Amino acid sequence: MASLEYYVQESQNLAVLGETASYIPALDEQDPSQFAVCLIDENGNQFLAGDTSTSFTLQSISKVISFIYACEEMTLDYVLQYVDVEPTGDSFNSIIRLENTEFGKPFNPMINAGAITITSLLPGQNREEKFQHLCDFMGKMIGKPVKINQEVYESEIKTADRNRSIAYYLKSNHILQGDVESVLDVYFRHCAIEVTVESLARIGLILSNDGVDPITNERFFSKEISKVAKALMLTCGMYNASGKFATFVGLPSKSGVSGGILSVAEHEDLQGLQGKIGIATFGPAIDPIGNSVAGIEFLKRISIEYDLSIF
Amino acid sequence: MASLEYYVQESQNLAVLGETASYIPALDEQDPSQFAVCLIDENGNQFLAGDTSTSFTLQSISKVISFIYACEEMTLDYVLQYVDVEPTGDSFNSIIRLENTEFGKPFNPMINAGAITITSLLPGQNREEKFQHLCDFMGKMIGKPVKINQEVYESEIKTADRNRSIAYYLKSNHILQGDVESVLDVYFRHCAIEVTVESLARIGLILSNDGVDPITNERFFSKEISKVAKALMLTCGMYNASGKFATFVGLPSKSGVSGGILSVAEHEDLQGLQGKIGIATFGPAIDPIGNSVAGIEFLKRISIEYDLSIF
Amino acid sequence: MASLEYYVQESQNLAVLGETASYIPALDEQDPSQFAVCLIDENGNQFLAGDTSTSFTLQSISKVISFIYACEEMTLDYVLQYVDVEPTGDSFNSIIRLENTEFGKPFNPMINAGAITITSLLPGQNREEKFQHLCDFMGKMIGKPVKINQEVYESEIKTADRNRSIAYYLKSNHILQGDVESVLDVYFRHCAIEVTVESLARIGLILSNDGVDPITNERFFSKEISKVAKALMLTCGMYNASGKFATFVGLPSKSGVSGGILSVAEHEDLQGLQGKIGIATFGPAIDPIGNSVAGIEFLKRISIEYDLSIF
Amino acid sequence: MASLEYYVQESQNLAVLGETASYIPALDEQDPSQFAVCLIDENGNQFLAGDTSTSFTLQSISKVISFIYACEEMTLDYVLQYVDVEPTGDSFNSIIRLENTEFGKPFNPMINAGAITITSLLPGQNREEKFQHLCDFMGKMIGKPVKINQEVYESEIKTADRNRSIAYYLKSNHILQGDVESVLDVYFRHCAIEVTVESLARIGLILSNDGVDPITNERFFSKEISKVAKALMLTCGMYNASGKFATFVGLPSKSGVSGGILSVAEHEDLQGLQGKIGIATFGPAIDPIGNSVAGIEFLKRISIEYDLSIF
Repeated sequence: MASLEYYVQESQNLAVLGETASYIPALDEQDPSQFAVCLIDENGNQFLAGDTSTSFTLQSISKVISFIYACEEMTLDYVLQYVDVEPTGDSFNSIIRLENTEFGKPFNPMINAGAITITSLLPGQNREEKFQHLCDFMGKMIGKPVKINQEVYESEIKTADRNRSIAYYLKSNHILQGDVESVLDVYFRHCAIEVTVESLARIGLILSNDGVDPITNERFFSKEISKVAKALMLTCGMYNASGKFATFVGLPSKSGVSGGILSVAEHEDLQGLQGKIGIATFGPAIDPIGNSVAGIEFLKRISIEYDLSIF
Repeated sequence: MASLEYYVQESQNLAVLGETASYIPALDEQDPSQFAVCLIDENGNQFLAGDTSTSFTLQSISKVISFIYACEEMTLDYVLQYVDVEPTGDSFNSIIRLENTEFGKPFNPMINAGAITITSLLPGQNREEKFQHLCDFMGKMIGKPVKINQEVYESEIKTADRNRSIAYYLKSNHILQGDVESVLDVYFRHCAIEVTVESLARIGLILSNDGVDPITNERFFSKEISKVAKALMLTCGMYNASGKFATFVGLPSKSGVSGGILSVAEHEDLQGLQGKIGIATFGPAIDPIGNSVAGIEFLKRISIEYDLSIF
Repeated sequence: MASLEYYVQESQNLAVLGETASYIPALDEQDPSQFAVCLIDENGNQFLAGDTSTSFTLQSISKVISFIYACEEMTLDYVLQYVDVEPTGDSFNSIIRLENTEFGKPFNPMINAGAITITSLLPGQNREEKFQHLCDFMGKMIGKPVKINQEVYESEIKTADRNRSIAYYLKSNHILQGDVESVLDVYFRHCAIEVTVESLARIGLILSNDGVDPITNERFFSKEISKVAKALMLTCGMYNASGKFATFVGLPSKSGVSGGILSVAEHEDLQGLQGKIGIATFGPAIDPIGNSVAGIEFLKRISIEYDLSIF
Repeated sequence: MASLEYYVQESQNLAVLGETASYIPALDEQDPSQFAVCLIDENGNQFLAGDTSTSFTLQSISKVISFIYACEEMTLDYVLQYVDVEPTGDSFNSIIRLENTEFGKPFNPMINAGAITITSLLPGQNREEKFQHLCDFMGKMIGKPVKINQEVYESEIKTADRNRSIAYYLKSNHILQGDVESVLDVYFRHCAIEVTVESLARIGLILSNDGVDPITNERFFSKEISKVAKALMLTCGMYNASGKFATFVGLPSKSGVSGGILSVAEHEDLQGLQGKIGIATFGPAIDPIGNSVAGIEFLKRISIEYDLSIF
């Protein structure tokens, strides 16, 4: 049986097949050959490899966190009045289904239309409060204050017209609540939150353990919400390759165009890691669909090697 | 042969089958039984019937005028780089084809996506200048200053999220030029320009006579632009009933949800009217597609009676 | 003023920009540099140029003839229960709108879905009778028996799966009447009918003269049906370039991928031709949309030169 | 903790909320209040409740079996050249995505377009052989000969035009292999295969145990294929409610409009059942989406009660 280190190396070698996201200068300037991995188990044992000190922005990974927080604060029933939980074969930024579907309800919270809607449901009197609440929630999970990458945030706001179009469409259908520009501002701040693989893997561990941090025994969200979130990650978490990832890797995961991937797993002895496991990878070279090339490869290889698939 | 008066009466009787547009209070409050008609020929002879003193807003009829003005000022070739001239079976406010078409170029200037794009191409340093230029152009054609219905304008700005969504989509595809909110502001002011059937029929007369007012001999736009505008009116001017209107009426026409219709015709002796003829009707009770019930009926009846169809 | 001969030559020179249709060997083997033109006026005066002896198959031009014949035999009202008359921006062989439209009624008779439906409405006990009736109708118009190109017919039947898919979709929506394979057989025979530019221009003349052959004074179809057919040709007759053709040429026309175009016009003195005029061109080099490059150019040039546009 | 018997009763009470499938008389005539359940564990322990002697046709459940068999015989790589494994929000019988997707490859084998393609890939010289091979494969799994409901098969063949349309579309895109009518014939025979909940649960047990029958230790398909099949069941197995079922039930499952559902689970002690478990339910009253009302309710209730969700 090959070691995790071996798979990290093998996967990093494939990074040359991808490219950094080009629509934002700050993302494009990342070193495409970077690759960092963190696994953490329920006893707090960690496996770390690569440039683990590098911070990267959550981008679409934030969709999982805002969804969980909105459900925890506003109840799952309330949130599901505004967003469905069905996968769709369309692009993450597609607007077509909003026109073709009765009421224009977004299909799921993992596409932009759904995530922008979720953002509009967050508790808080104004954009600052809404964002602060979310940061507090996330900060408690990772055990340190959350901060955003100002440069990325400002770039995203500037290139936001497609998302603005989606948001106004949702507003015209009475799906999006509140002021569009405020909602988008909070949305882009989520996307620009900086994490390391260590922080992200801790969130994965909490998800893996049904909402409770197994190291501190603190509960952050209900088991029910955890299950819904993991189901959404599996069915819709990897953009238009979600089906292939479910089929050939089989781990509930969510990726972002910055090159990060959040995953959850469980194993009896994964090179010493035991029980519930949170996984985070970061490799900024992404494939045309938007997923980290090295990250996908690593998760695929260890899923096969250690039989991690939930199927 | 029945008289025009007879057809006015017969058509007005059908107005009960329609309803006033409900999305704006100012439109909804119009008297649905109203009906006014004006025909004017190249010698200045007029036929007037009904409540001809009533003003109504142009709404989508403005799309023809802004298209003509943009082409006249910026050249047809320039304008056609941003908007195509193909009919589409989609709704006037559909966004789907922008996603499904390469480059996201709107199919024609008679749907909202196309008309908003046209508005963004108008000459002028800012929104005031852009709108003023257009008003000057139109004011010269109708021989009096142009003014807008402030209440309608403000209502439209407030309920504009679907159009805002379209505009930001166009912006994200680099089709719409300039600032979205400024463009939308000018667009909604166009829509809120007030006219009477007399003013509107005069514009029809100029269109009928290839861009020259036959009474004053003043040219307002080129013959080529006139032909393009009339072709667009015929193929795309009556919302999703454009094909049926072309087939069964056969007059280049453009309607608005306020209940107005602008048409052009030609005849040797239409109850005394001769040669090039401009026609305007106003009946605020519209059908589900958005066309004035009485207006459609009147144009259909006189087209058959006087063999006015261009086919 | 340049002569018609000059425009024929100029247009033929452009044929190199197109290519013969490649999906059927018999069409692909045509000489792409060929170009033939016939104009005939209401007094029987003809203008002929190019390889006028060459026969070519009607392909989509047959859609006009079968529509007219179905309306004449079954009434316009009956036919319009099964097919609408609205233009669409979709491809001629698109199936999407059948799924997205209530009842799945084809948008117009000039796209394959509409033309296949029309074929199913033709009178006759079986495929032989249906086709024979149509041939008789057309044969009387052109004054000689109609025959098909057997090789083309057999090729089309073999490569017919897309049309078969459309036909079964229509059948499942209860739009197409009768047996699918019989209907398709008659449909492909229509498409494979051979004509010369002289025969085709004669049909154009009859259309131009509202259903009556002005030379023999024989009526073939009603004025109403003639108007509907010409409106459809203008709004939907030139595939996805119908809008551009209406705008820049402005003659009701129908083209086929074999390279033929049928047009109608009217003029006081078009190089000696007077009054109602039928036009046919044949140039097998087609553009990517499916229209004859030389044919389009010729019609555009003479439309501008002689001011033939109906707008 | 409530008993399985209790949940069977509770779920059966809800059957009144559904209706039997109406498009085929033989399905419509089923007793809508019927409900049968079978669970079988890896030691051969069974739980049986309700009308377990009733046979019902597989309908869409056959899609799982034909997919597995095609992969086992032709290799997974080969099959995935023709069908993707991505979920889609479209209806099971939608044709739109075949037009909108490059190459027209069906999105997954659980929609009709994908399943018809899979059928065309089955080994065998002709339709009889193809079907016989599949029956042999399935017969070995359930330990008795497979037979079809002739009445259902004949009804489906008669009302097959929508599927015929899909098949010819696939053929025109060179996705479907072989003769369309033969493929459809085999496809409809699959759909008409009769099973009882006992037979179906046995197949579920084999799937649950990665392709090996744990009672006989016979391997029927590879672990890899088993994982792919279960991933497809989870992401696409319950029609347009697949996402909601994954979220709130979380068991890889496939349903058919006859009212059957095939599921897989695992538990330490589910009322005496231990380890890998196969589940089958049959309740012919279906919801508008096509899933058995009682079946969905039963699986949801026991998933919550026994914490069966894979998430």
